[in-house]
Amino acid sequence: MKRRSIKQIVYNTMYLQDTLPGKAFNLLLIVSIVMSVFVVLAYSIPSVAAEYWYAVNYLEFFFTVLFTIEYLLRAWCSPSSKSYMFSTFGVIDLLSIAPTWITIIFPLFPSLALLRLFRVLRILRLVKLLQYLNDTHLMMQILLNSRRRIAVLSLWIMVLVVIFGTLMYVIEGQENGFTSIPISIYWAIVTLTTVGYGHITPQTVLGKAVASLIMLIGYSMIVVLAGVISQEFSDVKKKLQGMTCSSCGTSDHAHDAVYCKRCGARL
Amino acid sequence: MKRRSIKQIVYNTMYLQDTLPGKAFNLLLIVSIVMSVFVVLAYSIPSVAAEYWYAVNYLEFFFTVLFTIEYLLRAWCSPSSKSYMFSTFGVIDLLSIAPTWITIIFPLFPSLALLRLFRVLRILRLVKLLQYLNDTHLMMQILLNSRRRIAVLSLWIMVLVVIFGTLMYVIEGQENGFTSIPISIYWAIVTLTTVGYGHITPQTVLGKAVASLIMLIGYSMIVVLAGVISQEFSDVKKKLQGMTCSSCGTSDHAHDAVYCKRCGARL
Amino acid sequence: MKRRSIKQIVYNTMYLQDTLPGKAFNLLLIVSIVMSVFVVLAYSIPSVAAEYWYAVNYLEFFFTVLFTIEYLLRAWCSPSSKSYMFSTFGVIDLLSIAPTWITIIFPLFPSLALLRLFRVLRILRLVKLLQYLNDTHLMMQILLNSRRRIAVLSLWIMVLVVIFGTLMYVIEGQENGFTSIPISIYWAIVTLTTVGYGHITPQTVLGKAVASLIMLIGYSMIVVLAGVISQEFSDVKKKLQGMTCSSCGTSDHAHDAVYCKRCGARL
Amino acid sequence: MKRRSIKQIVYNTMYLQDTLPGKAFNLLLIVSIVMSVFVVLAYSIPSVAAEYWYAVNYLEFFFTVLFTIEYLLRAWCSPSSKSYMFSTFGVIDLLSIAPTWITIIFPLFPSLALLRLFRVLRILRLVKLLQYLNDTHLMMQILLNSRRRIAVLSLWIMVLVVIFGTLMYVIEGQENGFTSIPISIYWAIVTLTTVGYGHITPQTVLGKAVASLIMLIGYSMIVVLAGVISQEFSDVKKKLQGMTCSSCGTSDHAHDAVYCKRCGARL
Repeated sequence: MKRRSIKQIVYNTMYLQDTLPGKAFNLLLIVSIVMSVFVVLAYSIPSVAAEYWYAVNYLEFFFTVLFTIEYLLRAWCSPSSKSYMFSTFGVIDLLSIAPTWITIIFPLFPSLALLRLFRVLRILRLVKLLQYLNDTHLMMQILLNSRRRIAVLSLWIMVLVVIFGTLMYVIEGQENGFTSIPISIYWAIVTLTTVGYGHITPQTVLGKAVASLIMLIGYSMIVVLAGVISQEFSDVKKKLQGMTCSSCGTSDHAHDAVYCKRCGARL
Repeated sequence: MKRRSIKQIVYNTMYLQDTLPGKAFNLLLIVSIVMSVFVVLAYSIPSVAAEYWYAVNYLEFFFTVLFTIEYLLRAWCSPSSKSYMFSTFGVIDLLSIAPTWITIIFPLFPSLALLRLFRVLRILRLVKLLQYLNDTHLMMQILLNSRRRIAVLSLWIMVLVVIFGTLMYVIEGQENGFTSIPISIYWAIVTLTTVGYGHITPQTVLGKAVASLIMLIGYSMIVVLAGVISQEFSDVKKKLQGMTCSSCGTSDHAHDAVYCKRCGARL
Repeated sequence: MKRRSIKQIVYNTMYLQDTLPGKAFNLLLIVSIVMSVFVVLAYSIPSVAAEYWYAVNYLEFFFTVLFTIEYLLRAWCSPSSKSYMFSTFGVIDLLSIAPTWITIIFPLFPSLALLRLFRVLRILRLVKLLQYLNDTHLMMQILLNSRRRIAVLSLWIMVLVVIFGTLMYVIEGQENGFTSIPISIYWAIVTLTTVGYGHITPQTVLGKAVASLIMLIGYSMIVVLAGVISQEFSDVKKKLQGMTCSSCGTSDHAHDAVYCKRCGARL
Repeated sequence: MKRRSIKQIVYNTMYLQDTLPGKAFNLLLIVSIVMSVFVVLAYSIPSVAAEYWYAVNYLEFFFTVLFTIEYLLRAWCSPSSKSYMFSTFGVIDLLSIAPTWITIIFPLFPSLALLRLFRVLRILRLVKLLQYLNDTHLMMQILLNSRRRIAVLSLWIMVLVVIFGTLMYVIEGQENGFTSIPISIYWAIVTLTTVGYGHITPQTVLGKAVASLIMLIGYSMIVVLAGVISQEFSDVKKKLQGMTCSSCGTSDHAHDAVYCKRCGARL
């Protein structure tokens, strides 16, 4: 019985943020996550990693132990250990501590490239921060309800950059840097999204004319699509929030309305 | 009679997507299109084309045969062969298979440049994908209804880049890369659309001041025009979705109107 | 009396676009303007100007004669010659034909740089096209009504780029290309507007951090300001279009409403 | 008694802009601020500072004396000198005159770098201009009410650039310019915000694919977020502008509501 209540207290502290210890724990966890991410960043800078080799490794080890304890406690105190371990955040928690343990247990890690890949998995700790954002709800719902529209837009953009990329490949050719269609498509994406690295630029007159067209399409699309999508979202939001008055049929009441704003009837 | 029913079945499978065979056929077609586009892309990469010469050519031949069969079947089963063959998608279907057949029939193609141009026509297969997007309807209608406004905006942008391009040509001159007015206009487009390749940059103080002005105009125009156009579209959408009064036929009422705004009759 | 009616006919043809000759004249004028602009552009390309010297000059002379006749006719047929000659379009008409006449009358023009500046004045013919855009009305009114807001925004952006430019000048210094505060401000404008030429880039760690901040501010401002300004314009448009119902006080009727949409009373 | 009325007059002139002397004083102050900022800018250009050494220094001294008098007068005439001196604008006023006085009093300033940092503090005079913008009110309130949403968005963008930066560091590696994770994150910010300097560009095929994805996400986010945020602001504005029910005190009614949505009473 006592053990169960301890489990309950740990659960409340870790998962609920209403109580004072819960708030303290979660604040500490956020600070730890941010600091451990900075350690991973520092580790990747050759000069810092060389000079502060011990400090960086000790900090990394310290945070790994900390997050391992957190992982074990979460698995132990949650009503179903299995459902936590196979949840998105459970997997991320595991992936972000595993690399350090594996490099400690197998110090003679075979491939250096794989080791590097492995190490950066620790950056996933950052994703743990996202669980504290609990008001992305409406925004997410709007985006989910518009996912078909967004997919259609993406397909249009894809077709646009493939056609324009191919066109530029034919016009400019290999001698001006457009060495293959995929490279030309990459260039078209760089231009349409108005990023414009400038590592490849059209040299022929016709190529410059087509490039101008791509730029103007990319630029106008921001302006025009922002307007269209704003109208789209306005519909989706109304649908998500809408209640219909049974007496007069008005449907776009505010989401917290109790009485119909037109006829005064109770909703 | 029997032949006609086969024709009917083929037509239903190819054009309608309600039945199971129709769905299966169209899914297969989409996969074939995407794969054949990847083959065209691979073909254009010198190293890939050299190493996998046979594989790429065989795959290209295979997809050409496939799309030729599709083309012939579509022409045969559609109620009017002629109307299909001269429709947009009919022409695209033909253009995307013709290049391969012509290079097979005339292996000693005279011009290499023309051959390259010819080959990339096969990328048009991608456009066939667009026929599956049947819900771009409202968005298209909004854009069509606003096409006059979009044309006016385009003309304004044109006048802006021509004036600013000419100004920069006078200020910077040929020694700083602004070798002619068209080149300066091209630079003005690159700057106004915020692409910014950086292949030509102003060197004089006055040139930098004018360039700053162009950038700020380009930047502000996104912000301001997105707002204006959003309001425009809101009107267009209301008109498109609007109720029609049964007594006087007025159709563009506000979406929450109860009485006809023209004759006062209840909607 | 007869002369007056000829004047009337010429006036109607030139200024009104309802009649068939009026439409024909204005279409011809638009084509002439576009073609004459292309001649000016061609003139500025050294290779084209060298090869087609006579063609370009003859065309330029031809269009100058044409627009001179147009100018004289407009001055003669308009009710008040003076008010036309001192109107915006009258001055532009004169400025766009003057350069050619002056270079013909004074072939030994002293300064070559001044001549070049002078010649490009002919590009102003393009501005004459804008007189055909008569539905920029509502958009212009919205912009005029929001001009104070746009001025405030511009001032904010100015303060932002001056402060950030100065900061980068202190952080990066002359050795990394930030040679003076005005150059740094120019760089801040290039970065904030997301143009990003890449001709100067921060080299120090702190400089890169501040540059990241400027980019994120510039990027977020597009998103956030487009939303704020869209709401602003919505208010302005309502005010411009609004009528208030005298019986129930509802004020946001559509601009062509005759009856109140809420209570059905005549507006 | 007389001295008090002088204090009153000075106060009215400096702080209120209703009277003619008040308007004249404030206009003069604005002009002085703008001119003194130009002097600071000119001072930082090596060639100008060398050639016009005396003019620039005399002007700087003149403006410093002017703003010192303004500072002393403001402190003297305001009801509470202390509250002015410790207000934001009071501190800025002091910081923008202190550097010149200190360099005059201590001509043998030890560090040249510190001196440069010190001198640019004078640019803060520009911030004094912002006190004249008194209609950023509603815009500011909308932004303040949406600050939580903006913070969430910022966090999402942070997570995005850290994850993508790390990914590119693993894919491209040190040999292609992605020398550490922080550098890669900086590159991801440059790309996501569509600035695109082009000082580092991906060289591998996979790197280009991921870069394309970042660009498309950055581009789409402008379009999609502008729409979402526009809807958000529409809610916030309605709440800010909303009517208050006299019977129950609910304040966020829709702008066209006739009855209170909570208690049903007529508004």
